Amino acid sequence: MATSSSAVPPPAAELVEELVIGNRILFQQNVVDAFGHISVRHDKDPTKYLMSRHLAPGLVTADDIVAFDLDSVPVHDISKRYYSERFIHGEIYRARPEVVAVVHCHAPQLIPFGATKAMLRPIYHMSGFLGTGVPVFEIREAGGMTDMLIRTPMLGKALARALGDKQIILMRGHGATMVGTSIKQAVYRSIYAALNAALQMDALRLGEPTFLAAEEAAKAAESNDGALERPWALWKRQAMSE
Amino acid sequence: MATSSSAVPPPAAELVEELVIGNRILFQQNVVDAFGHISVRHDKDPTKYLMSRHLAPGLVTADDIVAFDLDSVPVHDISKRYYSERFIHGEIYRARPEVVAVVHCHAPQLIPFGATKAMLRPIYHMSGFLGTGVPVFEIREAGGMTDMLIRTPMLGKALARALGDKQIILMRGHGATMVGTSIKQAVYRSIYAALNAALQMDALRLGEPTFLAAEEAAKAAESNDGALERPWALWKRQAMSE
Amino acid sequence: MATSSSAVPPPAAELVEELVIGNRILFQQNVVDAFGHISVRHDKDPTKYLMSRHLAPGLVTADDIVAFDLDSVPVHDISKRYYSERFIHGEIYRARPEVVAVVHCHAPQLIPFGATKAMLRPIYHMSGFLGTGVPVFEIREAGGMTDMLIRTPMLGKALARALGDKQIILMRGHGATMVGTSIKQAVYRSIYAALNAALQMDALRLGEPTFLAAEEAAKAAESNDGALERPWALWKRQAMSE
Amino acid sequence: MATSSSAVPPPAAELVEELVIGNRILFQQNVVDAFGHISVRHDKDPTKYLMSRHLAPGLVTADDIVAFDLDSVPVHDISKRYYSERFIHGEIYRARPEVVAVVHCHAPQLIPFGATKAMLRPIYHMSGFLGTGVPVFEIREAGGMTDMLIRTPMLGKALARALGDKQIILMRGHGATMVGTSIKQAVYRSIYAALNAALQMDALRLGEPTFLAAEEAAKAAESNDGALERPWALWKRQAMSE
Repeated sequence: MATSSSAVPPPAAELVEELVIGNRILFQQNVVDAFGHISVRHDKDPTKYLMSRHLAPGLVTADDIVAFDLDSVPVHDISKRYYSERFIHGEIYRARPEVVAVVHCHAPQLIPFGATKAMLRPIYHMSGFLGTGVPVFEIREAGGMTDMLIRTPMLGKALARALGDKQIILMRGHGATMVGTSIKQAVYRSIYAALNAALQMDALRLGEPTFLAAEEAAKAAESNDGALERPWALWKRQAMSE
Repeated sequence: MATSSSAVPPPAAELVEELVIGNRILFQQNVVDAFGHISVRHDKDPTKYLMSRHLAPGLVTADDIVAFDLDSVPVHDISKRYYSERFIHGEIYRARPEVVAVVHCHAPQLIPFGATKAMLRPIYHMSGFLGTGVPVFEIREAGGMTDMLIRTPMLGKALARALGDKQIILMRGHGATMVGTSIKQAVYRSIYAALNAALQMDALRLGEPTFLAAEEAAKAAESNDGALERPWALWKRQAMSE
Repeated sequence: MATSSSAVPPPAAELVEELVIGNRILFQQNVVDAFGHISVRHDKDPTKYLMSRHLAPGLVTADDIVAFDLDSVPVHDISKRYYSERFIHGEIYRARPEVVAVVHCHAPQLIPFGATKAMLRPIYHMSGFLGTGVPVFEIREAGGMTDMLIRTPMLGKALARALGDKQIILMRGHGATMVGTSIKQAVYRSIYAALNAALQMDALRLGEPTFLAAEEAAKAAESNDGALERPWALWKRQAMSE
Repeated sequence: MATSSSAVPPPAAELVEELVIGNRILFQQNVVDAFGHISVRHDKDPTKYLMSRHLAPGLVTADDIVAFDLDSVPVHDISKRYYSERFIHGEIYRARPEVVAVVHCHAPQLIPFGATKAMLRPIYHMSGFLGTGVPVFEIREAGGMTDMLIRTPMLGKALARALGDKQIILMRGHGATMVGTSIKQAVYRSIYAALNAALQMDALRLGEPTFLAAEEAAKAAESNDGALERPWALWKRQAMSE
């Protein structure tokens, strides 16, 4: 974190460190490549969030983390370059008070579901969080002919509206956005949404899959939320030893 | 192994070491990710088995190995967290006296077969052990609407019953469980069951595959059982040098 | 660069270094294996271009970079072995004055599109540059029965003609060639053309994909051109630390 | 090589070293896993060939290389364990005097073609050597119900007969065998046969592929044979630095 003279208190060092690790894990697990980003709500001020400056997630360090307000304006330093799609984060934090972390990615396995009518559904218990439904955002409805990016508060609001109370939204011709009540949960959901997509594509070629029932999915999601430390410990070791 | 004052004698250090290596191999070969587990029957007491505490297999060391009885109660220390699905292991050891090792995994290639009507069959000699048939466990029949996990002795018994005298069982919406008469055999079967699944999916898209006949499969399985040291030496070097 | 006594001035060391990095990135990102090549137009003389001698791109160093004229004759040293397909580069530089870098590769994901009637189209914003169309070069029309390689100025001219004003051309039974106004842009296009091909194959199996509209593709391509430094920094670190 | 007092002269150290490198490359390039083998005809005695003892190719060193006669009997030391399928090698060397190297593998991409009626055909110039046809060996015709392995001279002779004058043969439910006039050529053919299979599977899902015409394939194969040093240098560096 760059030092600051503003009224916004600095976030806990542990939170910044966890956000850095989240960036690295998303890269090491192939959820993001040079593009995509992860943010976390500020622990001292819920009207702010923390995210890296314009940088590939695999290269992010604590010094790159910046605070933004919910309009996605950097709090301290407007001289650097920031992710042009930071409005995804700000508008979701505004619309969903319980959300603590947001991931935006172009995970390859998710793109085909966003581009077709196929619905992403939970094929196994690891992705029970998909069971409440996965909407698809069509940017043409909100913005007409664009470069596909969420470059404005208006587009960010439209995306947040399309997300509603769900945990993940696919974005046609672009990628996906996932939320969570912690960095660990949002990272978990990103990794297993992508893996579920790959497994579902394979299963669809084999026959008619039996997906998890809504009740199975809800129970599985709750169970998995109780075991987030286990994969995090492994992912962290893999990501930080590179 | 944690030291102990109970009546259960400590297992051979070599067995614990082999179990640790088995954990690492399953991770390095992508059979397990942060989830899944491998156990071995206790060499001094067939009514006990050894398995890691609640930990990603890729992180397991000898100090993490714990003894359980066939009710899957830890023998020495009930204060730690253990795998919630340890009943898979205990109930299979109870039902199958000849079984010495059990692997439970969510190998991605196996999920599509568990979720559809497609039958996993031996497409080449490396997976002859599939030739006696691969049942699919539907947890709804045993437990109704669950979180998909084998969390109770009752579900463990139902799984063991569905496994019958087979070497592997797929679990709908969840994963798979393999058994063997040694750690090496159970690990071998895990790796080649997953690989066979991938090859079979490819072959099914090319045309009607000729699978191994039952007699071919049985003979191939016997031959492979005589060559387990060869892949183990390679996998061990790959897994332990990470 | 080998030293030289000819009239062609030496290129900037930074350009040679960037070309070396481009070689390594293309290998590390699986765009090329031992075959394929990347060139850049000479910064001091637009009638010359720079490329490695006959060597796998993953092994190229600054000492291997050689200058060629637009007839693809090496300027200084005709004693070494050079890529037999260097005419791809020379003839495209001759036909397209604005082109500064050329990549030729056999990226596995692109071969199926070159061998069938399926058209490569932009499935997401990262590959907006595909939106102006991707022609397929049929060497039989230009050269009859060949070894498929662009071994002559005549074949190079035919390829350049088929490329026209596009950014990429597929070559039936062979590979693909991409151009850019910088090394970074040509490398970017190579990586995302291959990734788009993989995603499109997956999407086609799921249903009828919605591809980017021409206007979306054009706008996305322009946006991406403004963010080339971000992936380059990551790819460079990955490629040069091997 | 173990020292010897027999009448068979020791092979050139360079040949043994090249064979070791060939073993490691086949492993590093995923043509073989713990199973599969590569041999070379003895440079001092064409009625002998060199191959590792029973060991995963990725672990082979010069000390593991042993000489066999064409009956596949080890020349010096019958006390060790050898590959049970060494008759593949001995019988092909007997039947094909021009063959200098033989690879046997279970490359995953090739298994689906051996198990179905789909014919492996050259989809691009890198695999022109496939253009003369790829027979499939059905071991049931030669040996009835077996463990699928070429365990006897009789089965080895049947395989060599089925191979005929071709460069590669698929083995139903088992794997493939490739030959070459050098270690480098046999390794090249192994790697690109597997890659071609993957590309062909993708192309078949996209539409009706245009394969290389026989004349194109023959010319491409000849061209590639003139460039074997280029990939070998890269593969060697990758394999020997592990």
